[in-house]
Amino acid sequence: MSAMRIPLAVVLFSLITAAARAEDGYELWLRYHQVSDPALLAHYRTTLPAILVEGESPTLTAAKKELITGLRGLLGQETPLVREAKLDDLLLAGTPKASKLIASLDIAQELKTAGEEGFVIRSARIAGKRRTVIAANSDVGVLHGGFRLLQLLQTHQRIDNLSITAAPRIKHRILNHWDNLDGTVERGYAGFSIWDWHKLPDYLPPRYTDYARANASIGINGTVLTNVNANAISLTPEYLKKAAALAGALRPYGIRVYLTARFSAPIEIGGLKTADPLDPAVVSWWKAKADEIYRYIPDFGGFLVKANSEGQPGPQQYKRTHADGANVLADAVAPHGGIVMWRAFVYDDKVPDDRTKQAYNEFKPLDGSFRPNVLVQVKNGPIDFQPREPFHPLFGAMPGTPLMMEFQITQEYLGLATNLVYLAPLFKETLDSDTFAKGTGSQVTRVIDGTLENHSLTAMAGVANIGSDRNWCGSVFAQSNWFAFGRLAWDHTLSAEAIADEWIRMTFSNDQGLVAGVSSMMMASREAAVDYMTPLGLHHIMAEGHHYGPGPWVSGGPRPDWTSVYYHRADATGLGFDRTATGSNATGQYFPPVAREFEDPGRCPEKYLLWFHHVGWDRRMQSGQTLWDELCRRYQRGVDAVRRMDATWESVRDRIDPERYEQARVFLRIQEAEARWWRDACVLYFQTFSKKPIPAGVEPPAESLDYHRSIVKRYVPGTARPIR
Amino acid sequence: MSAMRIPLAVVLFSLITAAARAEDGYELWLRYHQVSDPALLAHYRTTLPAILVEGESPTLTAAKKELITGLRGLLGQETPLVREAKLDDLLLAGTPKASKLIASLDIAQELKTAGEEGFVIRSARIAGKRRTVIAANSDVGVLHGGFRLLQLLQTHQRIDNLSITAAPRIKHRILNHWDNLDGTVERGYAGFSIWDWHKLPDYLPPRYTDYARANASIGINGTVLTNVNANAISLTPEYLKKAAALAGALRPYGIRVYLTARFSAPIEIGGLKTADPLDPAVVSWWKAKADEIYRYIPDFGGFLVKANSEGQPGPQQYKRTHADGANVLADAVAPHGGIVMWRAFVYDDKVPDDRTKQAYNEFKPLDGSFRPNVLVQVKNGPIDFQPREPFHPLFGAMPGTPLMMEFQITQEYLGLATNLVYLAPLFKETLDSDTFAKGTGSQVTRVIDGTLENHSLTAMAGVANIGSDRNWCGSVFAQSNWFAFGRLAWDHTLSAEAIADEWIRMTFSNDQGLVAGVSSMMMASREAAVDYMTPLGLHHIMAEGHHYGPGPWVSGGPRPDWTSVYYHRADATGLGFDRTATGSNATGQYFPPVAREFEDPGRCPEKYLLWFHHVGWDRRMQSGQTLWDELCRRYQRGVDAVRRMDATWESVRDRIDPERYEQARVFLRIQEAEARWWRDACVLYFQTFSKKPIPAGVEPPAESLDYHRSIVKRYVPGTARPIR
Repeated sequence: MSAMRIPLAVVLFSLITAAARAEDGYELWLRYHQVSDPALLAHYRTTLPAILVEGESPTLTAAKKELITGLRGLLGQETPLVREAKLDDLLLAGTPKASKLIASLDIAQELKTAGEEGFVIRSARIAGKRRTVIAANSDVGVLHGGFRLLQLLQTHQRIDNLSITAAPRIKHRILNHWDNLDGTVERGYAGFSIWDWHKLPDYLPPRYTDYARANASIGINGTVLTNVNANAISLTPEYLKKAAALAGALRPYGIRVYLTARFSAPIEIGGLKTADPLDPAVVSWWKAKADEIYRYIPDFGGFLVKANSEGQPGPQQYKRTHADGANVLADAVAPHGGIVMWRAFVYDDKVPDDRTKQAYNEFKPLDGSFRPNVLVQVKNGPIDFQPREPFHPLFGAMPGTPLMMEFQITQEYLGLATNLVYLAPLFKETLDSDTFAKGTGSQVTRVIDGTLENHSLTAMAGVANIGSDRNWCGSVFAQSNWFAFGRLAWDHTLSAEAIADEWIRMTFSNDQGLVAGVSSMMMASREAAVDYMTPLGLHHIMAEGHHYGPGPWVSGGPRPDWTSVYYHRADATGLGFDRTATGSNATGQYFPPVAREFEDPGRCPEKYLLWFHHVGWDRRMQSGQTLWDELCRRYQRGVDAVRRMDATWESVRDRIDPERYEQARVFLRIQEAEARWWRDACVLYFQTFSKKPIPAGVEPPAESLDYHRSIVKRYVPGTARPIR
Repeated sequence: MSAMRIPLAVVLFSLITAAARAEDGYELWLRYHQVSDPALLAHYRTTLPAILVEGESPTLTAAKKELITGLRGLLGQETPLVREAKLDDLLLAGTPKASKLIASLDIAQELKTAGEEGFVIRSARIAGKRRTVIAANSDVGVLHGGFRLLQLLQTHQRIDNLSITAAPRIKHRILNHWDNLDGTVERGYAGFSIWDWHKLPDYLPPRYTDYARANASIGINGTVLTNVNANAISLTPEYLKKAAALAGALRPYGIRVYLTARFSAPIEIGGLKTADPLDPAVVSWWKAKADEIYRYIPDFGGFLVKANSEGQPGPQQYKRTHADGANVLADAVAPHGGIVMWRAFVYDDKVPDDRTKQAYNEFKPLDGSFRPNVLVQVKNGPIDFQPREPFHPLFGAMPGTPLMMEFQITQEYLGLATNLVYLAPLFKETLDSDTFAKGTGSQVTRVIDGTLENHSLTAMAGVANIGSDRNWCGSVFAQSNWFAFGRLAWDHTLSAEAIADEWIRMTFSNDQGLVAGVSSMMMASREAAVDYMTPLGLHHIMAEGHHYGPGPWVSGGPRPDWTSVYYHRADATGLGFDRTATGSNATGQYFPPVAREFEDPGRCPEKYLLWFHHVGWDRRMQSGQTLWDELCRRYQRGVDAVRRMDATWESVRDRIDPERYEQARVFLRIQEAEARWWRDACVLYFQTFSKKPIPAGVEPPAESLDYHRSIVKRYVPGTARPIR
């Protein structure tokens, strides 16, 4: 009796798992699974039967590998590398310098537009034959173009009439890793650091290359390896060797490494008695240190510095300015082409002024006094990566200084990795804000891409959400924020929807129902988080230390500006921080058209209302409801939105592999519970001031305020040491 | 022109990576790749065309899944589950209780031998048809038998005449995770903890199931989730819920969870003023806590306790004995069937006696005073997991108390994960040592398997080397130590060679050349490590704190027993710790036949010589060389052995996938450099006492002693906080 004769009816298929390969999220958006549409597949196979790349370099090798691997997966067949252009159809890639075929094309103008890192993709005829051309001025441009071509296939676009010219709008597109040398990651929610310092410089696991690939695919060209709360040890030879090994792994992908510089390093590892930036010994020390670093890493990017902030050392300890501090480092790296990114994130509880005003107060007077290779790195808003903040008033206020953007990709204040919060809408909200620095049309984008003040040194940084978790970011959806940051740093004109669409198709599939459903979840998610955490302009009311969960009652402790009551100012009369002229006058830091809008409670967008105004509980909102009722209903709205996300996810279940489906499903349940936790804790707490009933339509809290206040979260990830 | 006509000569295959799936080590030894031998493949396909498992339970579901997955891979075809025994050939699995077919077999005696967790595998005829039978008394026995059958295929054994009866020789086979709630792992070198406490109890990633599979496959049936340097928070409801979720994930695989109990928990989380084990409130608290734990985890295994050791709290703070402490916990878990594992690893620098003697001094007098559900957990040697130690004198010295073995799988003192040190020879050396407690034939195995004193409560623990690294253990070869521990805990009669042979075939392939080569590397590796670290009975001469690298010069500091000079006692006359009757008389703790052997420098095995004797530099060794020359040559021999391992690895390159090959290759280079580091540092240091030249054949050190003393290793993995 042969196996063929087994009655099918008795075969229990239920136990047979279909997937040969677990979908664990490691592939990110670089999934090269076979194109499911037969017509498109035939089209791609016909158009791209082989690859011709003229020229040799580690970067071109990386590009070839990616194209071969990508096309192998997407087309389900080998796409060979050829040396001669004999075939009727061919993928042709290279630079005019190394490739005569590329040089023969009439694309000089396009190549000029493409610049150093961009590319041209063209459907062309050369000597009568059909060529899909990836042309660039540099090998890394070819690599970027290769990724873009693969993306076209991943997103099911036809490739027979291509005419794409792409160039980054911002020069330095940089991840900031808040990674410590002991492997922990400050505000990291995806395991621990991906840098295995102990095994460096000897062992370079394949993951470093996959990290580089992922970044290059979205145009990121720099990475700061170490935490802004810096450790001088990272500048010792032992660790420079390790950083150099990492730089070597990333270099073929066009990614430069940067390090954070601890301002007191001349004392801690240099043996000096001072770190005074005007002390000649200190100047010499930084110069020699930079020379040493460039011996290890010839294309070292430069330094990122957090100084005189949250306990970090800095020039002010020596009565020097931030410019004095930045310039000593800038002079040290300048001969090597390096830059210094000096953070504007400074505030001090000894300074009596409103925290939101301090960075502006500190830095605006320094405009024009920085070296040309210094960028001032400004967070998107004047506090600290809250679910929503108005744009930082420094944008537009320092015309003589290149300002760079610092976004936070890791979800420090957004429920960590288990809350689905797609951040492109947040990023775009800041980027598209008009500063009115030079009248209407002076958007933040124009400050940071240099067009407003004609700066050629431009940069955007994102605090990475990458860790040792198999899926890199702790959750599949958190991957979209890494992707979105990169895409926006490359081209800030892209819409949040368009980026979500790309990411969904590349990460899940081109199934229309899936794309529509998942896109709706993502696009709603940030507003949902604002609603269930900090609606109507509330901010900084989270639990202390680990920043996980609600803590509107947080008061006391070492610093008032680390409490919640400092920010929400709830009292019997109302809620919110008066930052108008009658209050802290933070509105006065904005250019007049913006200042007037924020100043007037009637014109101030409700999303910023409690940021700028102390508002009576009974004040009528645009909805016609009182502030109190509106506040409660926003919290409820946030919970409802998460439930809709959960329902949508369930509706696309059959279109997603079980492993990724299940993880996101569990996380959405966690998010729903946490949304209720935020809602109940905040509504109950603010009710102690409003003394008003919870309005109809808002679910009554299941637990008491005392219960919520008693919750202690220990060992929350991303905190350097256990929080009690 | 079609793609078919591309000249093959111009196709650059070099860039085409063959592997569809990266060999990242995640699969461990549970690799089910298709059997490469065509005759065997046909034999397996014929013999196992389908699977019939009668009965339903989560454990049987796990067994079915494993068999289906395993056979799918190994046979390259689906092996269906069937409900009727119609086929001529069939794999039949189950218990006599649930399966009439199994009950019909004449295997009562074999099943009695198999016991609770063992199994019988038989090639049998039932009603004239050929059946491969996996029979057991319990579902977990069926699971174990399923893994064994798959192993037979993985190791290319014929399966047409099987007659296997297997039962574990030790009841509790347990991993000890030294994992902290903040995700760090004390002495962990494979990333961070695999327990994601933050996402528990909600999210149970597939990795937990794969962890359970790996353990079940080698017979491990228990896991202590938390560090022996314990945190009382792990006993709070918040964390018990998390532990319960983990228990649920592991339960189908026959693995129970245990927790470490911090002795001061009644104070820290119970609000009591004391943790005195004789205080009625403390007794009640532990009783109530145990009842609570069992409500969360009905099959909770029990507690592991480190008390009055290295700063941990314990009963001696209240003038009570270790037995008093163990018994209060034992009484609390006894009604639920739980056990207490009380560690004998105690030593105190306030006690003037030799550290190696203190555990014996402390515990021997307590023999007979422990509750029946207490095991005393004794490390293999009297110090602390050194590359080589004589067996612990407590073995055989407490006949009235079940003693369990504690081995260390993680390589705290063995170069961390980057040194290839196969530990089965170390484990076997201890296990096979004869204590002479009841005359010759009183091996340590007979103490811990209960046969010497007729104890039915038996256990073996291994300190896990498992972490969040993709390959679980930090390196492929470190996986062999997890495997070897499990196999020996199940059956300590297995030889180190046999276990290596199984592991190599399952992990790499059955290629004879590869098996022979890799086996030779593994079997030589432990002796190599002893030679390049601590030859001739030297011990505890590593760098302080992180225990990484050599530190024979370590002295001073908070405790003499944490220095190196305490242990090696080098001086102008010679080297070694006099533990004879004229010295610390540690030899006197062994039974007379052993004591006499160790006491006599002429009879003492040279491998223990400097452990027990202070030996003159000019003393002639068995080789005819002086101690000094022999010492230097042993260090050189260790380096040479690593170089041979490296060469052997290179010789099997073509027989191994590139990814695992490359990682091990780099690690062997690291190991060779570290072997030289140990050799040079130790030879140079001891030379300052011997004042003798380095003998011929020993490579002259490349650096000075001062250089080696100046090396500072920071942020070594596995230390709870950065060193210095």
